[in-house]
Amino acid sequence: MKIVIVGLGVIGGSFAMALQKTGAHEVFGIDSNDETLAKAYSLGLIKNTGNDPGSLGSADIVILCVYPKAVIDFLRVHRNDFKPGCVITDVAGIKRAIAEHAGRLLPDNVDFIPGHPIAGREKMGITYASDAVFKGANYLLTPLPGNREPNIALIETLALEIGFRRVSRISPEAHDEIIAHTSQLPHAMAVALINSNRDGRATGLCIGDSYRDLTRVAKINAVLWSELFMSNSECLLSAVEDFKAQLDLIADAVRAGDAPALEQLFRRAAARREQLDE
Amino acid sequence: MKIVIVGLGVIGGSFAMALQKTGAHEVFGIDSNDETLAKAYSLGLIKNTGNDPGSLGSADIVILCVYPKAVIDFLRVHRNDFKPGCVITDVAGIKRAIAEHAGRLLPDNVDFIPGHPIAGREKMGITYASDAVFKGANYLLTPLPGNREPNIALIETLALEIGFRRVSRISPEAHDEIIAHTSQLPHAMAVALINSNRDGRATGLCIGDSYRDLTRVAKINAVLWSELFMSNSECLLSAVEDFKAQLDLIADAVRAGDAPALEQLFRRAAARREQLDE
Repeated sequence: MKIVIVGLGVIGGSFAMALQKTGAHEVFGIDSNDETLAKAYSLGLIKNTGNDPGSLGSADIVILCVYPKAVIDFLRVHRNDFKPGCVITDVAGIKRAIAEHAGRLLPDNVDFIPGHPIAGREKMGITYASDAVFKGANYLLTPLPGNREPNIALIETLALEIGFRRVSRISPEAHDEIIAHTSQLPHAMAVALINSNRDGRATGLCIGDSYRDLTRVAKINAVLWSELFMSNSECLLSAVEDFKAQLDLIADAVRAGDAPALEQLFRRAAARREQLDE
Repeated sequence: MKIVIVGLGVIGGSFAMALQKTGAHEVFGIDSNDETLAKAYSLGLIKNTGNDPGSLGSADIVILCVYPKAVIDFLRVHRNDFKPGCVITDVAGIKRAIAEHAGRLLPDNVDFIPGHPIAGREKMGITYASDAVFKGANYLLTPLPGNREPNIALIETLALEIGFRRVSRISPEAHDEIIAHTSQLPHAMAVALINSNRDGRATGLCIGDSYRDLTRVAKINAVLWSELFMSNSECLLSAVEDFKAQLDLIADAVRAGDAPALEQLFRRAAARREQLDE
């Protein structure tokens, strides 16, 4: 297959690395930054040395590894540049907005299948690209009504081929609701925790693994995550409210000195967390 | 040195393992559970096969690896059983309550130096004991006014000997304030996050590393952490309020569609998190 990756950041670069390592595909790249493109070529991740306007038109598969709004912009600008039969997918962390817009933009002879690999790094840029982040991770597809089954299966196979453990199909609405809880809320929590620390404390002396783990994602890409939060504001605000209600139950039990109530909340959490590992 | 460890749970067992591996100490154990004691002996962690009432009276160092209230109870019951010159320390995750009580309980010829190794596991019991958790971790001491300098130095040396990276001295008040933010609040957040998930969601398909990391500590020891929370309620409730205020700033920016405000909160968090790694 001839695969073109649009956007060679940490995720696009990781896709290029993983696909190139399979030995089964020809991987090309497009990026607005010439240095990134040169780096991708010198790392052996892509076959082209510069942006090749023709490569898009000969691609069997196009993977859009750019920010959510840029996915829609790219599809709008290049709607007539794809080869008939081309299968396009993206990696954006929100799917409802993408699904709503993309369906209307493209001609019938290309198939856009929205996707979301649940894998990332706190670092930005091709320097940090690594196919290791895909190993054992989850991959979600939110197919559109017109998507052709063989094309969906093609992306599923590709995901498994590069190391993902499981590819699931889910509606864009369910995706955005769940991802608000499992990804966006945890990022908001990490940011709020770090920002709530008071200056002047000897915090560094008192941290263990739980604080490090919890705040790792506070090394956040501000522009990307701002876009993700804003594009999923309704689901995220609802997840925040649900979370605050549970945090209040804990605080109320502590304030009331009600140890049995607190222990019950803890036991519920421990049981629910165990289920996640199954 | 003859060292007696009181309480052979996951932490006491880990201490026994680490101290025994140094080859420089004779390690004995006391535990209310005979099976635990037999297991510790069969694992080669302690030299005694059963509870030896005499071992306490010949110990140079006693390490209390029991829950906070049990530390105070043990000191009260055994206040006259220690050898003159004995150095006693504990590992409880709260220090103000310990410091206030312990100082008044003990005779002048023994030295109790409250401590807190910032290392633990989500699992309970001696089966999960591992000296690996100490490697590179922080260790805090909150010395009492009457503590003798050579005895404090003795515990510091012991901590470094078994793999801790840094031993710091801090007041019990500062300890409890900071640990509320770095340890108790993160545990409350993990519990609240897991408990706020709605039933029926295909959550398992949508989790990545951040959710796993953040909720790891939700596999919580309900009895221990309830005691820790209740014994440090003032500091914890204050940390919760500070955190909620920051979370509200994020939610407010999302609700208002104010991307620049959100990005500013993100950049602040990323910078503060980077500092922690320095």
